[in-house]
Amino acid sequence: MSSAAELKLSRVLGLAKKFNNFYLTGFQKGDIRPFLVEGQQCGLIKSDVLKQLVKYPEVFCIRDCEHTKQGLVELNPAFRDYNERTQQLEKVLRNLRSEGLFPALQGWRDEYFEVKSEHNALLKMERAATPLFGVRKYGVDINGYVIHPKHGLCIWLQQRSNTKETWPGKWDNMVGGGLSVGYGIKETAIKEAAEEASIPSHLVKNLVSAGCVSFFFESRQGLFPNTEYVFDLELPVDFVPHNADGEVQAFELLPAKECVERVFTPEFKTTSAPVVIDFLIRHGHITADDELDFTQIVELLHVPLQSLYTYKTRLEQMQKLQQQKLPNDANNCNCPNLPPVRPLENGHKKAA
Amino acid sequence: MSSAAELKLSRVLGLAKKFNNFYLTGFQKGDIRPFLVEGQQCGLIKSDVLKQLVKYPEVFCIRDCEHTKQGLVELNPAFRDYNERTQQLEKVLRNLRSEGLFPALQGWRDEYFEVKSEHNALLKMERAATPLFGVRKYGVDINGYVIHPKHGLCIWLQQRSNTKETWPGKWDNMVGGGLSVGYGIKETAIKEAAEEASIPSHLVKNLVSAGCVSFFFESRQGLFPNTEYVFDLELPVDFVPHNADGEVQAFELLPAKECVERVFTPEFKTTSAPVVIDFLIRHGHITADDELDFTQIVELLHVPLQSLYTYKTRLEQMQKLQQQKLPNDANNCNCPNLPPVRPLENGHKKAA
Repeated sequence: MSSAAELKLSRVLGLAKKFNNFYLTGFQKGDIRPFLVEGQQCGLIKSDVLKQLVKYPEVFCIRDCEHTKQGLVELNPAFRDYNERTQQLEKVLRNLRSEGLFPALQGWRDEYFEVKSEHNALLKMERAATPLFGVRKYGVDINGYVIHPKHGLCIWLQQRSNTKETWPGKWDNMVGGGLSVGYGIKETAIKEAAEEASIPSHLVKNLVSAGCVSFFFESRQGLFPNTEYVFDLELPVDFVPHNADGEVQAFELLPAKECVERVFTPEFKTTSAPVVIDFLIRHGHITADDELDFTQIVELLHVPLQSLYTYKTRLEQMQKLQQQKLPNDANNCNCPNLPPVRPLENGHKKAA
Repeated sequence: MSSAAELKLSRVLGLAKKFNNFYLTGFQKGDIRPFLVEGQQCGLIKSDVLKQLVKYPEVFCIRDCEHTKQGLVELNPAFRDYNERTQQLEKVLRNLRSEGLFPALQGWRDEYFEVKSEHNALLKMERAATPLFGVRKYGVDINGYVIHPKHGLCIWLQQRSNTKETWPGKWDNMVGGGLSVGYGIKETAIKEAAEEASIPSHLVKNLVSAGCVSFFFESRQGLFPNTEYVFDLELPVDFVPHNADGEVQAFELLPAKECVERVFTPEFKTTSAPVVIDFLIRHGHITADDELDFTQIVELLHVPLQSLYTYKTRLEQMQKLQQQKLPNDANNCNCPNLPPVRPLENGHKKAA
């Protein structure tokens, strides 16, 4: 294998580690607490945020679990309902915003994100604040592609508008967006396809659901435990997307190889890279024979976020365990500690 | 949603939990030790196997890590090379086989599996014994499919020969097999396609690499921390596979919906189910809108096996940490304990 090839190979794993920087190393540091609303874990809070929240004891109960020394941040359980929880939290967020302590809050959008646990809506939160609370986010992404008679597989990318609050001017997947209240997943993809790239209905009907990617990224803005539902859309060679909502400044069609190179540049939105890598793997353009770290990369496109938000389940399991024990065994506490998942960076390669 | 649909939905998650029974619950029990060869973690050993290995102190050093109380099983580091390690281990395995204690060893094949760490071959081990040592296994699988003018997406399945050592008579993917020494991954897929299903070269050239699935299953035979490299192969409507090596007794072409039903039956090989589910997800036949547990299912098709075989990396990190500490801080041991990953079964659903 040439050194150029080696360089390229390690870059895919390097990128997968970059968009999982919190999953791979943030948890090691252990300064993270579950955020509970109505007994349900809705997020994860780091110590820099915690330091500010302690100033609002009427809103946040910051305590240790009675069974372990595990620290918790709980929204005051005395708040009666969805509206009171929303208002009380928002007062704090507006205060924090005015103090200018968190870059994330400088991107305040007056857009709400609904915080749910399973299927219950618990409160809504300013969208820009969700990274401070480590709230899981869900979005859709469309890989728009062309089978070009001369260049083979080509992929449409968009360049985000310079006025966007997040990742302005960066290159991104052809179409993407967050899930909105009241819209289905495919419905959101179709809506975004029309708004962002003017994909007409006779083309968007070819949209194919192709799975999802999950990763856990951290930036100066906070935590991004993200899941992106992924769709593929083959487009005619002569179709050119154009933007309809002012959120995109350009589209460009790139042969697969050039697309890979673009993804590695700092001009590409880090949290959109998993979608492109997943697409290239599913379509045979990144393969196990060429990529020594293939299995590790695939695992890093699907990190087990569901096991990081299970405080309630773990508490119930623990209580069940303790009920099964004899009273004189009560000190032998089996409470599981956070973090439940401690993945480690490692040089493990596939065995064959 | 109808109750029939609900029933069907929960079945996919149920199956994903079944082929990850060890990942989801085996680790909770904590009776598992890393298996080390030349300081590298090559496997995981449960207490039932450990109980037998203690009888061979000249072959296995069973000890606790000096830094933690974590138990280890180490192949005697005095063994000089690949051959001595192989021979010493084989003597034990033949003994255990003659004692009839482990069902896995009743399937002795006189076929070797090469145990590697990163790219170093450390020893070879009778293939039937690998589940006792929790050695990671790698295989290839081909999803053979047809776009039928009347029935839409149809999938070819094979029925395994009744004389196979493992899963005799069960339904399985069209083509599958373990990686062999000296063969590349796609090369193995092409070889198996010819042997198992007589796929001619002009058709097999359409093989598309489509990723991999990883899961951690346990059966009476032992542990199966498996990674399957997945290939898709579209076939002409009139092509019919036929077996060339005596390992398959029948092939059947099923419409996608019937294929799903087949996968849920006890007649389907449990450890091949992840490949079919992954295929149906990638091709839009299991979708996030229809399947409430979609993200959890996708994560369970790609469990982080790489983080379970990292004893050496963790030891090095720990030693580095300890070197950074002052001597009087030496009791404050930060050694990471096995299991590094403690996923939990939970009812977490996607938030939107």
